[in-house]
Amino acid sequence: MWSAVREQRSRERSRGGEGGRKRGRRGAMTFEERKKRALKRLAERGADADIVEILERINRLENFFTTSSCSGRIVLLKIPHAGSKREAEFIAKWHRPVSAAEVLLALKSMQGRNAGCSAAREREEIWLIEQPPIIHVACRDLRSAEEMLEVAYASGFKYSNLKSLKHFVVEILSTERMDVPLCECGRMLCTAEYIEFVVSRANFLLNRAKKKLKRLLENLSSLE
Amino acid sequence: MWSAVREQRSRERSRGGEGGRKRGRRGAMTFEERKKRALKRLAERGADADIVEILERINRLENFFTTSSCSGRIVLLKIPHAGSKREAEFIAKWHRPVSAAEVLLALKSMQGRNAGCSAAREREEIWLIEQPPIIHVACRDLRSAEEMLEVAYASGFKYSNLKSLKHFVVEILSTERMDVPLCECGRMLCTAEYIEFVVSRANFLLNRAKKKLKRLLENLSSLE
Repeated sequence: MWSAVREQRSRERSRGGEGGRKRGRRGAMTFEERKKRALKRLAERGADADIVEILERINRLENFFTTSSCSGRIVLLKIPHAGSKREAEFIAKWHRPVSAAEVLLALKSMQGRNAGCSAAREREEIWLIEQPPIIHVACRDLRSAEEMLEVAYASGFKYSNLKSLKHFVVEILSTERMDVPLCECGRMLCTAEYIEFVVSRANFLLNRAKKKLKRLLENLSSLE
Repeated sequence: MWSAVREQRSRERSRGGEGGRKRGRRGAMTFEERKKRALKRLAERGADADIVEILERINRLENFFTTSSCSGRIVLLKIPHAGSKREAEFIAKWHRPVSAAEVLLALKSMQGRNAGCSAAREREEIWLIEQPPIIHVACRDLRSAEEMLEVAYASGFKYSNLKSLKHFVVEILSTERMDVPLCECGRMLCTAEYIEFVVSRANFLLNRAKKKLKRLLENLSSLE
């Protein structure tokens, strides 16, 4: 489930975020050249409003630059029964807490579209997924990566890790997430009351995750 | 949610797995000394049956040793409403696919225990969580860590990462996971039919994740 969402996030970041660098031979571009290109992309494509200040602060640091980010969101995702990543499709995305009414409305609109669909379409599932903030930071070297990881952990981003050893890319990642299957298309499997409960938990987790962004912003000053 | 489970997993691995090394000053113990201690712990405490062969293969490699592992499981977890990690408690754990009947029985047993509880207890939630296999591997150096990560990615463990730069600990982690809130204690919020659906998805993800262990075992030969 998560792999489908992360691949979608990765494609979106490549299209609409500040990332999407082509992978060249190691040493083909210097750190400064890669940073310049990443910042150009960020300026062109922008980023989620409540994460912009953090990105700016990281990008002002000599030994770091951001390559992609998302400030956290709640999504409804449609996937084929077999969980095929390539065919996953977003039904709705919210970068803020949502109401059960919004979620139910989005689900109902899907049911309307699926009326009269094939048996294969009826095996599709819809999942509600809450995703925490995520920021990818390219670091100049291993030591810088260590420093960034310490700042991330100290700010509550306990799932942070070193994602790539090629360009020392640190993934700043928090822990709050939820993956809940809600229905197989054409068939709602849970009650409206349950959806209200799930939505309240998703909002709680998203809010808690977003609060950590403030701590991260403060703690970044230790790298200046 | 995940942080509560991972902390529990971490405490369990320290108690009953092969991990739990004390963190000393860097260089206080050599790689070989740390490996010897880890293997001794593994021999004393054992590991999940369907992961033993992989651990043995990794531990035979000169530049690696395992520090903790879990072959994947489905759990029912009880947490306070506020999501406090320290108070999370396992209700049930299965290292295999489960039936809806088993899950319903475990939930019913909790409802029985909670009869007459305080308002605070009634805010507790029960979550069904499917967790993929996870293996922590201490590597001799950065290059070894890179090699292990490549093997992990090639085997489908797409969430693998370098967890610790102090001892080059690679986390081999797959993507299949699910976190579903089922009820607030004293109040089942979803139908038995929905629980059957959730359980079928959890089993699907767990089986898919476990199949990757076979690929990992084969691919480890490239490190010999």
